[in-house]
Amino acid sequence: MSEKWIDETLYNTWKQSFRVDKELARKKSEFQDIQIIENEFYGRVLLLDGATQITEKDEFVYQEMLAHVPLLTHGNAKNVLIIGAGDGGVLRRVLQHPEVEKATMVEIDGDVVALSKEFLPKISAGCWDNHRAEVIIGDGIQYVADAKDESFDVIIVDSTDPIGVGEVLFTDAFYRDCARILTPQGLIVNQCGVPFMQADELRETSLRRAQFFDYVSAYVVAVPTYIGGFMTLGIAGKGDNHTKQRVSVIEERAQKANILGHTRYWSPEVHTASFCLPPYIQEQLP
Amino acid sequence: MSEKWIDETLYNTWKQSFRVDKELARKKSEFQDIQIIENEFYGRVLLLDGATQITEKDEFVYQEMLAHVPLLTHGNAKNVLIIGAGDGGVLRRVLQHPEVEKATMVEIDGDVVALSKEFLPKISAGCWDNHRAEVIIGDGIQYVADAKDESFDVIIVDSTDPIGVGEVLFTDAFYRDCARILTPQGLIVNQCGVPFMQADELRETSLRRAQFFDYVSAYVVAVPTYIGGFMTLGIAGKGDNHTKQRVSVIEERAQKANILGHTRYWSPEVHTASFCLPPYIQEQLP
Repeated sequence: MSEKWIDETLYNTWKQSFRVDKELARKKSEFQDIQIIENEFYGRVLLLDGATQITEKDEFVYQEMLAHVPLLTHGNAKNVLIIGAGDGGVLRRVLQHPEVEKATMVEIDGDVVALSKEFLPKISAGCWDNHRAEVIIGDGIQYVADAKDESFDVIIVDSTDPIGVGEVLFTDAFYRDCARILTPQGLIVNQCGVPFMQADELRETSLRRAQFFDYVSAYVVAVPTYIGGFMTLGIAGKGDNHTKQRVSVIEERAQKANILGHTRYWSPEVHTASFCLPPYIQEQLP
Repeated sequence: MSEKWIDETLYNTWKQSFRVDKELARKKSEFQDIQIIENEFYGRVLLLDGATQITEKDEFVYQEMLAHVPLLTHGNAKNVLIIGAGDGGVLRRVLQHPEVEKATMVEIDGDVVALSKEFLPKISAGCWDNHRAEVIIGDGIQYVADAKDESFDVIIVDSTDPIGVGEVLFTDAFYRDCARILTPQGLIVNQCGVPFMQADELRETSLRRAQFFDYVSAYVVAVPTYIGGFMTLGIAGKGDNHTKQRVSVIEERAQKANILGHTRYWSPEVHTASFCLPPYIQEQLP
């Protein structure tokens, strides 16, 4: 029997491909082309419009860094807003922090949530039913525009790249609203792509955010299936810049939150090290 | 005209592919299948036995970390031995350090050196003609077996993976000889693969080296075309463990060596941060 492969279509000169051992789902939703396949090494793989979003085997890398770094950098986040992240992996990590009283997740594509519930339960690990979680199927842009001032301590934006459905999550209007609804020491994190391949994404996003926040920085994470070297996660906030914490401070907070020793990529040392940017990335920041 | 692509054959469930805009060279040497192609984004790309070795665009990432980290960790390396690295990119970086009096490079495959001289001159940047360089086409195993005691301050092993021609560079006999020919504060670095994909490689290599060296550690680097998340570079040495240097010490040495501000991935902060290993990698070390 001949093998079937699925090619990522993100770049036109270079690509990754997964061997498709089983096709689990394919749906053209109102917003995008959703595919879930099974691969012997990576387990189940979710692609949106041909771009790899998450795999069962390496999801811990991206999700731990996207959730634990902002929450432990802040230190006392009670209200958290998640935009996107329809697979549930970020919501799951946010809810691991006992100081979080409420996590609100706004995902535009209900089909992503429904298919993730059906085919990717290992990634969400039961978080959907947590009483501190509110899951809204709706437009994140509209949600932040309508939200009242100073409602959230941390906002996590797990968007696709700034093409297609995710584009509006990289605009001035969106960042202005995010700044408005953050508490005085609040901070926002959003994925800024792989700068070796898409340097513009980090540069432009950082410049935009610099207009509305008191500080703008970024940290790096090496995600196996986001090929092209480091992915950057942009971080920006109001008030004091808390991104240069001592390892001991982060470690103490993680211990209190019962995260310490229960992660596979994140650690207090990796947390602080991830803010050390290679010059080729640093030069993209304002 | 239809596009031509070249697939990496390293893993059987997942692969990367480069668009081939021009085929520059293909030679079955005595040791391996050598291919050099041209790609619009990555420039010239060298593959050995179907595995990506180096590209013009991202070579700085791997080469800077493979050369500058051991030399600046040591602090006063006068004699350096390089095994492999036939493209010349490591030799070039080693020679940037003024305290290096002699760099000896031993590459088993003369065809790799010849083709690199012809097609990859941007990577070696003229290092072949440096009067402090000695380039030997020969067997690295035999070279270290024959070398006299305490001849080198730093040994850099830029091997392929432990299959095929590179296999003998991961044996007890090789490491025993390396330990013997290192000076009392000498250290050795070797590539240990991408642990997310090949965890055994790091674990087994580290266990082997622990028999012959006073300390064994590893640091990480996110190379765009070594897909699968962090690559690890193993480091081991005689005498005191110098891998946990303060940033200020590394910065001072880099300033003296005139490296500071002239690198694109390496920096003093990235140097020290690279020794912070994610738990999934740390657990592979003895």
